[in-house]
Amino acid sequence: MLLCKMSNSQLCNMRDELLQQLDAYKKMSLSLNMTRGKPCKEQLDLTTELFKNVDIYTDSTDEYGVDCRNYGELYGIRGLRKLLAPLVCATEERVIAGGSSSLNMMFDVMMKLVVFGADDKNPPWGTGKQVKFLCPSPGYDRHFAITELLGFDLIKVDMTDNGPDMDQVEDLVRDDPSVKGMWFMPVYSNPTGSICSDDNLRRIAWMKTAAPDFRIFCDNAYPVHFLEKYDKMNVNILDECKKAGNEDRVFVFSSTSKISYPGSGVALMASSENNIRSYAKMLSKQTIGPNKMIQLLHLRAFKSFDDILVHMEHQAEILRPKFKAVIEILEKELGSLGIAEWTNPRGGYFISFDTMEGCAKKTVELAKSVGVEFTNAGATFPYGKDEKDRNIRIAPTLPPVKDLKMAIEVLCTCVKLASIEKILEGQRVSNAV
Amino acid sequence: MLLCKMSNSQLCNMRDELLQQLDAYKKMSLSLNMTRGKPCKEQLDLTTELFKNVDIYTDSTDEYGVDCRNYGELYGIRGLRKLLAPLVCATEERVIAGGSSSLNMMFDVMMKLVVFGADDKNPPWGTGKQVKFLCPSPGYDRHFAITELLGFDLIKVDMTDNGPDMDQVEDLVRDDPSVKGMWFMPVYSNPTGSICSDDNLRRIAWMKTAAPDFRIFCDNAYPVHFLEKYDKMNVNILDECKKAGNEDRVFVFSSTSKISYPGSGVALMASSENNIRSYAKMLSKQTIGPNKMIQLLHLRAFKSFDDILVHMEHQAEILRPKFKAVIEILEKELGSLGIAEWTNPRGGYFISFDTMEGCAKKTVELAKSVGVEFTNAGATFPYGKDEKDRNIRIAPTLPPVKDLKMAIEVLCTCVKLASIEKILEGQRVSNAV
Repeated sequence: MLLCKMSNSQLCNMRDELLQQLDAYKKMSLSLNMTRGKPCKEQLDLTTELFKNVDIYTDSTDEYGVDCRNYGELYGIRGLRKLLAPLVCATEERVIAGGSSSLNMMFDVMMKLVVFGADDKNPPWGTGKQVKFLCPSPGYDRHFAITELLGFDLIKVDMTDNGPDMDQVEDLVRDDPSVKGMWFMPVYSNPTGSICSDDNLRRIAWMKTAAPDFRIFCDNAYPVHFLEKYDKMNVNILDECKKAGNEDRVFVFSSTSKISYPGSGVALMASSENNIRSYAKMLSKQTIGPNKMIQLLHLRAFKSFDDILVHMEHQAEILRPKFKAVIEILEKELGSLGIAEWTNPRGGYFISFDTMEGCAKKTVELAKSVGVEFTNAGATFPYGKDEKDRNIRIAPTLPPVKDLKMAIEVLCTCVKLASIEKILEGQRVSNAV
Repeated sequence: MLLCKMSNSQLCNMRDELLQQLDAYKKMSLSLNMTRGKPCKEQLDLTTELFKNVDIYTDSTDEYGVDCRNYGELYGIRGLRKLLAPLVCATEERVIAGGSSSLNMMFDVMMKLVVFGADDKNPPWGTGKQVKFLCPSPGYDRHFAITELLGFDLIKVDMTDNGPDMDQVEDLVRDDPSVKGMWFMPVYSNPTGSICSDDNLRRIAWMKTAAPDFRIFCDNAYPVHFLEKYDKMNVNILDECKKAGNEDRVFVFSSTSKISYPGSGVALMASSENNIRSYAKMLSKQTIGPNKMIQLLHLRAFKSFDDILVHMEHQAEILRPKFKAVIEILEKELGSLGIAEWTNPRGGYFISFDTMEGCAKKTVELAKSVGVEFTNAGATFPYGKDEKDRNIRIAPTLPPVKDLKMAIEVLCTCVKLASIEKILEGQRVSNAV
């Protein structure tokens, strides 16, 4: 039965039961952390099995004769750039394989736009409100944090099931040259899991922007992180931008953080020939080259892109039951109540969960009060502010299934309680009127 | 016999002989690269011997319970920070162990000074000529390149045998608040190999600067890279700055690039509690943590600081004959001629070689014409311009002794030739007058 159709006394009874349930949870002294999208031990063990059998010491020289122990190779080693190029929608010549953190690469590119500008024809972006940046939301809090740190004006754009709402985006970029760029996750977007449609990818590439130095930070964090089967993209964003005459528009980032080890993988970027050339010119002032031994390790462990897909299929086997468990509990507990919606993603690391308006914060607070921590409500929006107070990000990957089920059951209890209180409050207000 | 005391005909005869010698070199089709301070294969093999016997896969958890395969530990793993803290003159709490490149860390800190400023009390440095930066010269070209890229005004300060000329430094910083900082290498400075004296270290810590946000980039690249024995510093620069009430003045950087593998080591920085706290706050926006598996590898390979010193003694055994060979040839070929000076360092990666005024470029050109490449003359000065055209950086570490000897013999031939031509030109000019 829909919660909103229940009578006041039904709601009050249900609330009392939920409060008892919450009290029971409290007595269990739970301590469950659902805040971040970290791989679980079993996923890491898959990589360990691969890595521990790879020898990078007897011969540390790559197929092109580079001793990976010594300095050099600003772009990273060629074999690895070739292997991982599909992750960033490019061919190896336009791929830079760097350190372990793609977030750091994005930060670095952003800082260079601020200090040096996008190219010789355009001035540095500088910091502060004169730069507006589009933030499809709900989105990744760490993206927004970078542009917030720089004082940019973060403009919320709605996420749809098929990527950013392109009507909104096109309207925003068309006439205002201070709109300088956009965050963008093409596949299994964090946290909604949505896949950008071919049509929307084309619109991103072709749209007219008032800013000649408009730049899209395309974070392809989950290109092969499917739960069921590999969703290969039909439209190559870099190629499409080139066709549209906007080839310098997009930087594509990715990493092996959630393929091999988080923090100990290889981060990548690709862009137009121009962009890569001018980025590399600056890069040559800041480093002599990336960690090539790690790159050699990855190259020898994953010999081909097909190997990577097989490895990701093994990871999917571990993750599938976890996502399934979450969805099942949500369906069972909330399916008939009309108080929440959630995504059922084909891949990625998250389930995006929407409460009734004004219930997300309260839900997360209640869960925290019994020892279950979720990402702060609002974190998936610019400035950490979800105007409708609806969105909660669920990260099912890290906990064992047993803990995960418990956490989601707690979440369901809490969201029911928060919703009932909201409805009762609404009734009180309308009675008072 | 001093070259300047030779008669014109003696000089002309000698020149003819040298030209013949040069011609003989040319016929040998040499191809020797002496441009960069890279470790040689034998040095890398020492590390390979260590690393290949370290298991980081059976148990990837550090002594504090951190699974080094997963995300986290913004400051790096604690055990490693403890182990390497002496390299950056600090205790572990104030050490950040990051990626593989300390140069990249310096670049990153510099970019943050430009964009965000040194602290809440001082505005961002911005780019351009309003920022003056002191460059003790001859120095490291890649340091100067970072500040040149940012458009700073690079101010040359003389290097002495005991560090930067502190009279000059004190004069420059005293009254001009646009003098914002200084590059500094305390031990076995690149390229002179000089060790900063206790007295000069104290002056650096205590001097009055007009800029309240004056910052010293102390690149401790060679703290344990002795040729004979470990030169432990008596004055701890961070402690001394604190005593002087200037605790935020200095960032100390180091890395294991020339301890383990270049490019695949661990970079470090340390500074005051304030500086580290505010740096880490920004770092938390740009990365989730460094490559901890590499850190675990180093921690398990080098269990104690004494182990590192033993390892460096083995490296010194490899490098000592190379430095000795260079010095011997220079002594033998040039010792009596009065046309060149060179350092005889106690450690580090370079020998700094000074020709007569106006002869360095010509010398390097001549060597290149017979297939022996040295670092560009001038590279050791801001903007690549050595006003006196004297300095050449010799990097003895990479080539085998046989090649190294050949390269230095070529250098000697070339510097003699360049000097004779300079002297003859001088005679022509004074005869004409």
